[in-house]
Amino acid sequence: MSKKVTKIAVLTSGGDAPGMNAAIRAVVRTGIYYGLEVYGVVRGYNGMIEDDIFKMDSRSVANIIQRGGTILKTARSKEFMSPEGRQKAYANLIKRGIDGLVVVGGNGSFTGALKLHEEFGLPCVGIPGTIDKDLYGTDFTIGFDTAVNTAVEAIDKIRDTADAHDRLFIVEVMGRDAGYIALHSGIATGAEHILIPEEDTSVEEVIAGLSEKEKRKKLVNLIVVAEGHKSGGANHIAEIVKQQLPNLDTKVTILGHLQRGGSPSCIDRLIASRMGYHAVESLLQGRHNVMVGILDNAMKYTPLEIAIREKQRFSDEWLKIVKILAS
Amino acid sequence: MSKKVTKIAVLTSGGDAPGMNAAIRAVVRTGIYYGLEVYGVVRGYNGMIEDDIFKMDSRSVANIIQRGGTILKTARSKEFMSPEGRQKAYANLIKRGIDGLVVVGGNGSFTGALKLHEEFGLPCVGIPGTIDKDLYGTDFTIGFDTAVNTAVEAIDKIRDTADAHDRLFIVEVMGRDAGYIALHSGIATGAEHILIPEEDTSVEEVIAGLSEKEKRKKLVNLIVVAEGHKSGGANHIAEIVKQQLPNLDTKVTILGHLQRGGSPSCIDRLIASRMGYHAVESLLQGRHNVMVGILDNAMKYTPLEIAIREKQRFSDEWLKIVKILAS
Amino acid sequence: MSKKVTKIAVLTSGGDAPGMNAAIRAVVRTGIYYGLEVYGVVRGYNGMIEDDIFKMDSRSVANIIQRGGTILKTARSKEFMSPEGRQKAYANLIKRGIDGLVVVGGNGSFTGALKLHEEFGLPCVGIPGTIDKDLYGTDFTIGFDTAVNTAVEAIDKIRDTADAHDRLFIVEVMGRDAGYIALHSGIATGAEHILIPEEDTSVEEVIAGLSEKEKRKKLVNLIVVAEGHKSGGANHIAEIVKQQLPNLDTKVTILGHLQRGGSPSCIDRLIASRMGYHAVESLLQGRHNVMVGILDNAMKYTPLEIAIREKQRFSDEWLKIVKILAS
Amino acid sequence: MSKKVTKIAVLTSGGDAPGMNAAIRAVVRTGIYYGLEVYGVVRGYNGMIEDDIFKMDSRSVANIIQRGGTILKTARSKEFMSPEGRQKAYANLIKRGIDGLVVVGGNGSFTGALKLHEEFGLPCVGIPGTIDKDLYGTDFTIGFDTAVNTAVEAIDKIRDTADAHDRLFIVEVMGRDAGYIALHSGIATGAEHILIPEEDTSVEEVIAGLSEKEKRKKLVNLIVVAEGHKSGGANHIAEIVKQQLPNLDTKVTILGHLQRGGSPSCIDRLIASRMGYHAVESLLQGRHNVMVGILDNAMKYTPLEIAIREKQRFSDEWLKIVKILAS
Repeated sequence: MSKKVTKIAVLTSGGDAPGMNAAIRAVVRTGIYYGLEVYGVVRGYNGMIEDDIFKMDSRSVANIIQRGGTILKTARSKEFMSPEGRQKAYANLIKRGIDGLVVVGGNGSFTGALKLHEEFGLPCVGIPGTIDKDLYGTDFTIGFDTAVNTAVEAIDKIRDTADAHDRLFIVEVMGRDAGYIALHSGIATGAEHILIPEEDTSVEEVIAGLSEKEKRKKLVNLIVVAEGHKSGGANHIAEIVKQQLPNLDTKVTILGHLQRGGSPSCIDRLIASRMGYHAVESLLQGRHNVMVGILDNAMKYTPLEIAIREKQRFSDEWLKIVKILAS
Repeated sequence: MSKKVTKIAVLTSGGDAPGMNAAIRAVVRTGIYYGLEVYGVVRGYNGMIEDDIFKMDSRSVANIIQRGGTILKTARSKEFMSPEGRQKAYANLIKRGIDGLVVVGGNGSFTGALKLHEEFGLPCVGIPGTIDKDLYGTDFTIGFDTAVNTAVEAIDKIRDTADAHDRLFIVEVMGRDAGYIALHSGIATGAEHILIPEEDTSVEEVIAGLSEKEKRKKLVNLIVVAEGHKSGGANHIAEIVKQQLPNLDTKVTILGHLQRGGSPSCIDRLIASRMGYHAVESLLQGRHNVMVGILDNAMKYTPLEIAIREKQRFSDEWLKIVKILAS
Repeated sequence: MSKKVTKIAVLTSGGDAPGMNAAIRAVVRTGIYYGLEVYGVVRGYNGMIEDDIFKMDSRSVANIIQRGGTILKTARSKEFMSPEGRQKAYANLIKRGIDGLVVVGGNGSFTGALKLHEEFGLPCVGIPGTIDKDLYGTDFTIGFDTAVNTAVEAIDKIRDTADAHDRLFIVEVMGRDAGYIALHSGIATGAEHILIPEEDTSVEEVIAGLSEKEKRKKLVNLIVVAEGHKSGGANHIAEIVKQQLPNLDTKVTILGHLQRGGSPSCIDRLIASRMGYHAVESLLQGRHNVMVGILDNAMKYTPLEIAIREKQRFSDEWLKIVKILAS
Repeated sequence: MSKKVTKIAVLTSGGDAPGMNAAIRAVVRTGIYYGLEVYGVVRGYNGMIEDDIFKMDSRSVANIIQRGGTILKTARSKEFMSPEGRQKAYANLIKRGIDGLVVVGGNGSFTGALKLHEEFGLPCVGIPGTIDKDLYGTDFTIGFDTAVNTAVEAIDKIRDTADAHDRLFIVEVMGRDAGYIALHSGIATGAEHILIPEEDTSVEEVIAGLSEKEKRKKLVNLIVVAEGHKSGGANHIAEIVKQQLPNLDTKVTILGHLQRGGSPSCIDRLIASRMGYHAVESLLQGRHNVMVGILDNAMKYTPLEIAIREKQRFSDEWLKIVKILAS
């Protein structure tokens, strides 16, 4: 049976996501509620190696739930990929008596936690924090709802100017491996075409659709493309469109990092709070080395190794709906 | 076996909710995709009685997905409560050959649809559209996510000024019978107390908590209360607080109708699109007199009479989390 | 000739206003740039009396320019109105060698500064910080632009729902003595009637206008009223309207304190930065006991006693434009 | 003496700008108030040539004051640059008896109006509508305040993620010839460096500043650059920075066309309303072939040829303030 956890650390790692602060707040306050000592690790595994670790109390997470970014900062750590780096990092935990770890991040971050468990037996729990929403074992990841609403607001604005000029706009949103931001923001803004890594639409098909619309004199067009689409992104598509449909007034916007920032949406604050609470509960109940997730509204605990290995299944109902509604 | 539907009408009824336009758009475009004629009824059942009905095409719903309110307008109709009123309304449908109806609204709106079915055999489908989120048979109602984000943004602003002055703010949000807006916006803004109709917290308990905090010199306080809480709302609570804790600088804000407006959030646009699509599918497949809903991510069809009669179950996990996180 | 100032303090006082943080940042960094020591006083004159004063450096104002509220907090101080209170407050400055003061606030705050000057010879400069925009000697006051944009966004949302229901909405905005928020937000949202303290429109005239429109079947109506209008505010107007025009579906929203919060607009950050810079310049150049202001784009220095005594002139060109445009 | 104008047309031309709809609304309603007939021309001078002109009434501009883009659409017209094109365009005005024209746009649009005046004696008035703010004869141009606030909100979000990662962000904003958007948004977001066409800062100077800060361990950095800066824009700067400071984690965001869209700010709605009103007044009073502007709060009428020829003077007070405050 696992020993009772008494001192825990929390860190954020990988790409930052709005709502991470709400998760930190929930971990800290739930920990304190249950009598634990709670430590914050700065800049992810980097701070663990460099001993940038400080004790947190209830006040240290006051007035942060509405803030974008992460007060613990985040980073990707090369040094932590080596056994020496991890040994150094673990030593900094152990000298404080830290016997439990909560990691907010994505697959890379969970891999780090799993290593700490495998090599040193440290009890870990992962919280899914990534704007890409592509993690297995959860319907929600912290930051996705905010990022997609940021994209929607930006595309709404672009549509104003597209509409004023009868232009074609190609908007590139984040998503290297996953098309959720493109899919959701594209549907929500009534985009005529949505191009995502998970689906095999070619630029040629899009151009065929555009030229058919051009004949019908339906002039305004909006294409939303995920950065990871096989076409290579918005600039590549624009080049081809300009060659083949030179009459179209075609413009590109790449939303970029503004999708990572901003005050988190209500849902991101709520799921982050709920997951942070359950992450600590999970450590206390001896349910270790799992990612807490929400599936069909219920808490779900997926072993970290499975969370890392498996991919979220992609539902193609939306693809059918898109075709009908964007007509 | 039911006859095939060929001409359908769509209306919005009851309180307006952001996202209703996305639902109208989806109903119209899905209907046209399947070869149906689609009619819009203006001002809910009122327009049905007064023959304010017009044919819609794909263009008539262009560029509305991002708009607040409802292009079909909405109303509550007294005349429709009488058999004569409904007879008049139905005659206006029948003279156009309309043989199917989609109603976007809440319980009152569904009751009207059910009457049309019972009295005239009209196939109807309901789409849950209400900012209150309190309908049975669905995890999502159109407008809730937008309304709660509007409340969150407003309360975030109020916290800025509360914090600058070390004041107690009592914020009243919408929700006559249901506390979801208060609960979600209260958690998301880190409110110290959340008062909802579903729970039995008295003002006395709140005051006890406040005075205990006053002793601890934790000065900033935020109370979020649903308008339907048994206390009678923010103004009543403020009176009692001022009597019993005269040292607190106590202010009231009633958010009111601004919670109904605004450009819909991504989620509200998506669920409205999805529900609108499935409402038409449902009519075509002979699945009549049901409310389309989303439960555990899947489409769910609840008979209108059950949707009207039953209440959404309230999960009290959140109440526990609130107590821990607001400390 | 005045001695050279070497150590200055900055405080915010009275009602908080978005942009105060940008002013604090500018005062601190300009002071440091010129080799001064800069102190922050917490909670206005209260903190001066209670010796809640701390030394600030460049880092202490990092990342605050975008924050609502004021990191120095604000308050109104009764004790400071007595000579004893001021004596105590001044002693706390003098023991640190503070020989210059920058006060961000409105008339009440400037009166306090003037007293410190008269009684102790302390060089003071005022920065106009109030959402009401009603100060003499400046076209801009910090917070007005943000507050009025907050009001506009809220009223836009209310119009969505007003429009969906063909309702009359009466929206009350801040402004006890000054109607600028009501006037600007009313024009910007196309309000049919705008009621402000500076003008003598009676509720009867409004009702006459409404009933005439009712006859013309122009149904949607929006009235924006300043809290200080002689009618007593939105609730009083609504009562009279409901009596005299019972067919109108009339609703009230009082925006309240959310107008004080929120991230400051670009203009508020800019004028606050510019005024903060010039306030320190002014102290250094021996231009004391003045309010820095911006008139016709140029910096203007108004003696505090005049700034306090005089009122901003109200231009009635807008009133004519409103009548023409809202028709 | 000039004949009394009786029928006027209004158009928007060149790049669209938020607030153009408020200007159209003001022109239409003021015209009708004074008994004129008012016509809308679609897609700028293109629609004038193609006879896409329609009569407007008070209702046709209802509920547009809050909308981004322009309901009259806009375009740049090559055909209008030829005498034949203009002849054709003028014929379409004259056949309706249109004897006055209001043009909302920038220099190119005013040049077109001037030609119509010179060649056909048509009375014209220009309204400055451009997000770039670089027109002579006015402190305000319609759309600038909204565009700059959009940029500020986006950069605030980018700072969240920059801060979470200790990264350098280079943000490119609009402004081919003018640096106002870069300057104002850069100051308002506390950017460490602001690069504008009007000033001669080289990338080398910026890099020197960055490397000096790197030594001081001040890690987060934000550079805002106007697209028209001599460096060639954000991507070019990033390349040089990456070469010379490879340790910095440098990212680029190009805000692009989202700066053109969105609901106009309060100021843009107000100045557009005021200018629209005065444009019609000006036509009626025989003050023709001028641009209406606002200088030092007063209406100013600049002959179109001067407005086109002269450039707005750039004040360098801000450049000094930036250096002090960004330290």
